[in-house]
Amino acid sequence: MIAKPHAYTLQALADRLGLELRLRAGRPMPGPVCRLAALASAGADALSFYHNPRYCQDLRHSQAAAVILHPRHETDCPTHCLLSDQPYVAFARASQLFARPALQQQGIHASASLDTDVQLAANVSIGAHAVIGAGVAIGEGAVIGAHVVIGEGSTIGAGCVLYPNVTLYHDVHLGERCIVHAGAVLGADGFGFATSGGRHHKIAQLGGVRLGNDVEVGASSTIDRGALDDTVIEDGVKIDNQVQIAHNVRIGAHSVICGCSAIAGSSVIGKNCTIAGAVGVINHITICDGVTVTAMSLVSQNIDKPGIYSSGTGLDVSGNWRRNIVRFRQLDDMARRLTRLEHQAVSGQEDPE
Amino acid sequence: MIAKPHAYTLQALADRLGLELRLRAGRPMPGPVCRLAALASAGADALSFYHNPRYCQDLRHSQAAAVILHPRHETDCPTHCLLSDQPYVAFARASQLFARPALQQQGIHASASLDTDVQLAANVSIGAHAVIGAGVAIGEGAVIGAHVVIGEGSTIGAGCVLYPNVTLYHDVHLGERCIVHAGAVLGADGFGFATSGGRHHKIAQLGGVRLGNDVEVGASSTIDRGALDDTVIEDGVKIDNQVQIAHNVRIGAHSVICGCSAIAGSSVIGKNCTIAGAVGVINHITICDGVTVTAMSLVSQNIDKPGIYSSGTGLDVSGNWRRNIVRFRQLDDMARRLTRLEHQAVSGQEDPE
Amino acid sequence: MIAKPHAYTLQALADRLGLELRLRAGRPMPGPVCRLAALASAGADALSFYHNPRYCQDLRHSQAAAVILHPRHETDCPTHCLLSDQPYVAFARASQLFARPALQQQGIHASASLDTDVQLAANVSIGAHAVIGAGVAIGEGAVIGAHVVIGEGSTIGAGCVLYPNVTLYHDVHLGERCIVHAGAVLGADGFGFATSGGRHHKIAQLGGVRLGNDVEVGASSTIDRGALDDTVIEDGVKIDNQVQIAHNVRIGAHSVICGCSAIAGSSVIGKNCTIAGAVGVINHITICDGVTVTAMSLVSQNIDKPGIYSSGTGLDVSGNWRRNIVRFRQLDDMARRLTRLEHQAVSGQEDPE
Repeated sequence: MIAKPHAYTLQALADRLGLELRLRAGRPMPGPVCRLAALASAGADALSFYHNPRYCQDLRHSQAAAVILHPRHETDCPTHCLLSDQPYVAFARASQLFARPALQQQGIHASASLDTDVQLAANVSIGAHAVIGAGVAIGEGAVIGAHVVIGEGSTIGAGCVLYPNVTLYHDVHLGERCIVHAGAVLGADGFGFATSGGRHHKIAQLGGVRLGNDVEVGASSTIDRGALDDTVIEDGVKIDNQVQIAHNVRIGAHSVICGCSAIAGSSVIGKNCTIAGAVGVINHITICDGVTVTAMSLVSQNIDKPGIYSSGTGLDVSGNWRRNIVRFRQLDDMARRLTRLEHQAVSGQEDPE
Repeated sequence: MIAKPHAYTLQALADRLGLELRLRAGRPMPGPVCRLAALASAGADALSFYHNPRYCQDLRHSQAAAVILHPRHETDCPTHCLLSDQPYVAFARASQLFARPALQQQGIHASASLDTDVQLAANVSIGAHAVIGAGVAIGEGAVIGAHVVIGEGSTIGAGCVLYPNVTLYHDVHLGERCIVHAGAVLGADGFGFATSGGRHHKIAQLGGVRLGNDVEVGASSTIDRGALDDTVIEDGVKIDNQVQIAHNVRIGAHSVICGCSAIAGSSVIGKNCTIAGAVGVINHITICDGVTVTAMSLVSQNIDKPGIYSSGTGLDVSGNWRRNIVRFRQLDDMARRLTRLEHQAVSGQEDPE
Repeated sequence: MIAKPHAYTLQALADRLGLELRLRAGRPMPGPVCRLAALASAGADALSFYHNPRYCQDLRHSQAAAVILHPRHETDCPTHCLLSDQPYVAFARASQLFARPALQQQGIHASASLDTDVQLAANVSIGAHAVIGAGVAIGEGAVIGAHVVIGEGSTIGAGCVLYPNVTLYHDVHLGERCIVHAGAVLGADGFGFATSGGRHHKIAQLGGVRLGNDVEVGASSTIDRGALDDTVIEDGVKIDNQVQIAHNVRIGAHSVICGCSAIAGSSVIGKNCTIAGAVGVINHITICDGVTVTAMSLVSQNIDKPGIYSSGTGLDVSGNWRRNIVRFRQLDDMARRLTRLEHQAVSGQEDPE
């Protein structure tokens, strides 16, 4: 059976979110609220939210059952309000009330293959065909999806959710409440070879992978095991889809790595950084706390001051762009010619005007 | 048993492809045609095709059993011909005649796990260890590969093919005749957080994913579910491998997204666009119909005119490149100095020559 | 049961690695050596190595049980030594002595699904829920992980290791001692369509994939099958995670392709090339032997001379960068204005100074 959608009275929503409910006089009390919607599309069955001034007009005309907003905007709202100092955070919490859990708690599926030496805490759920290796320990309430493979000696903290088709190699350690999306691979070999005479000799990757608490890893992302020491992802780090984290990288707490970015071996990213999508960071780089790197930039040198960093060129019509990239190859020459002209101009102006 | 290779007489090929067969006088009738090959490598057992003038010499010397070509090239062809106004399209259709189906129709494999509340139309095939959740409906003739996981309430249209190890989360809807390659993940959570005080609060992703008819999704590509509304891929869209489509993106009908491209949240791509490989599109971008973006470009502003767009620099020997990127950092300064020199030149020329 | 860590006497290490052991006089003989560690963190239970002069101070103070190093550095080492002309290669071989095999030899798991027409050589291991198609042949000592799917007619050479959740389509051929990491997909359809009237007609991909000996393929990498002929990866090629190799690509022997790079259709890369991370190579490109392409470069023209190649711009603070990319769009114009000024300066100097 599919779970029924959730439904709440306004008062129940206020109670669960710990927000003050302010009823708009003359506005009828709505029926059960069963979904979350944007201001413009929310009807009387929906809760909405307001935090971005761009949607000011939508607020003034909203038909929502109620709107989560900052007290200073209460008078702009034609319908009932749930007051919050941080309406966007309150919206995030409200979204959880309407979420259908993607994986059902279901106990241990009969088709799962568990080694005899596995430790399961209370209320662990393990999906169909999952394979759990020797020495694995899984914490309370963790949900392991169908087809997940967990290698020897790995540990999964309480409250973790691993979606289907996740692969954890051996010695991969997850803190509490981590979420790992489908297809992600944690603990594959780092890409290490000793090259001699044009031949590449594989360096066994003897370290593991260690995730802190509240880490999220997106679909098809890969985090390699360390060569000698562990690859480390600190607490609260959020990693989007198709991100590649190489061996011995360390990502500081509460940093965000957006989709398709790649962090090469042994690089260290500070705390509270934002690495936008499709960014590359070469190996052995250090990035300090509080750095933002914009989309598709390449970080090829250390960054030791917080701030926003970029590389690349802007988009252009291809005809223009083609002419300009020819000039880019002549740029150093142009700079020298410019300097020479300036010197000539100065010497030509030696006579006072 | 492995399926035997297909073999056809020339007349059978002409009939199946609906093309006129023109026999070359004096050329013997070939035996069964059992493969498709390029002009230069095709022997008497192979069908070939000609549509690119670059291969004109290959055509003149081809040993193929027959060649699919435009009537105007018939006289250049030393062997039998199959005439087509669109020889490349005819070749595409011919290729299907020689394809070995990657997944065999096999009914429901005994090791598959189906919820009791699953609707299967006629001739559905489900591979080993597949896991099908509650409320799933699968259309006529669909082929679900081994190890595919389909979440609750998802629907699969008639004639779809899902290759092994595909993961569909709940509420993912595929039209008819979609093809999803191995390792693809549809419906993982969009990357949405409300950040406050340096902490990221997860926004539950309440929307789903909706694919039109005839959509193809490449291996290890990821299409995230929407935050409130669905992520939408319209009819006929072709998505290559390792493409990332973020939450609430919409891709217009018959657009093509090449390998390793990434489309960030809420961006809208028009119809009949071509996004080349490794392109990035930042979030909340709108691209109109009929746009081509060349490889590894970053789209960071809306595009409202059809055309070809690019970013980046051309490739260069690293020594030169290194000198030029230093100058790139001085480019605004160079532009100002150039303008100043021009002004000086004009004022220095005030005296008539 | 988890395997116990390995432990060796110094003499056993010297024997296994074929290196000369030089005992440091006055230094006690260490107990069993059970791990490999960097110079600075190695204690008396660890073997270390020295090959990079940057760690010269670490060598002088190392507490390791023994250090692998070149004979010329023996006098700088306070502890026992293992002498090697190629200490980094010797370290690579030593790392194998301490590796825990990620997949245990275990015979054929009861839950694996093997077609009746499968050929298994001696000592093949097949993990839980693996699915092996008709006509597959697997060589001696190969280890097939849990949840691996191998399509019809594919062949796996002796000594190969396929990690969990790998998907091989039909007609994918691996040489000996190949390693394929979790989530990799070999043999999915190349991205080929005949487009007519805005509709894309799928071209069946009739070729296969062929890997030489000693090839390694990283996690979530994808190698598509060829359109008519095979996609070919030659001996000794090392491919990192999340790499995309399109149809009919050929990668020459002993080349290295780093993480997240994408090689488009029909491109040919020579032998002993190094393609750094996040590089793009457009289709129908030829790159000669011995080429290095630096991170995140785009190769959009043939390379016929060995050397190092790059594209892109350096990283900058976003404020500066934004001003410079505006100028990049004017670069051709700037170049023309510069040339004009130079002509003016020359004509203005016609009068002798």
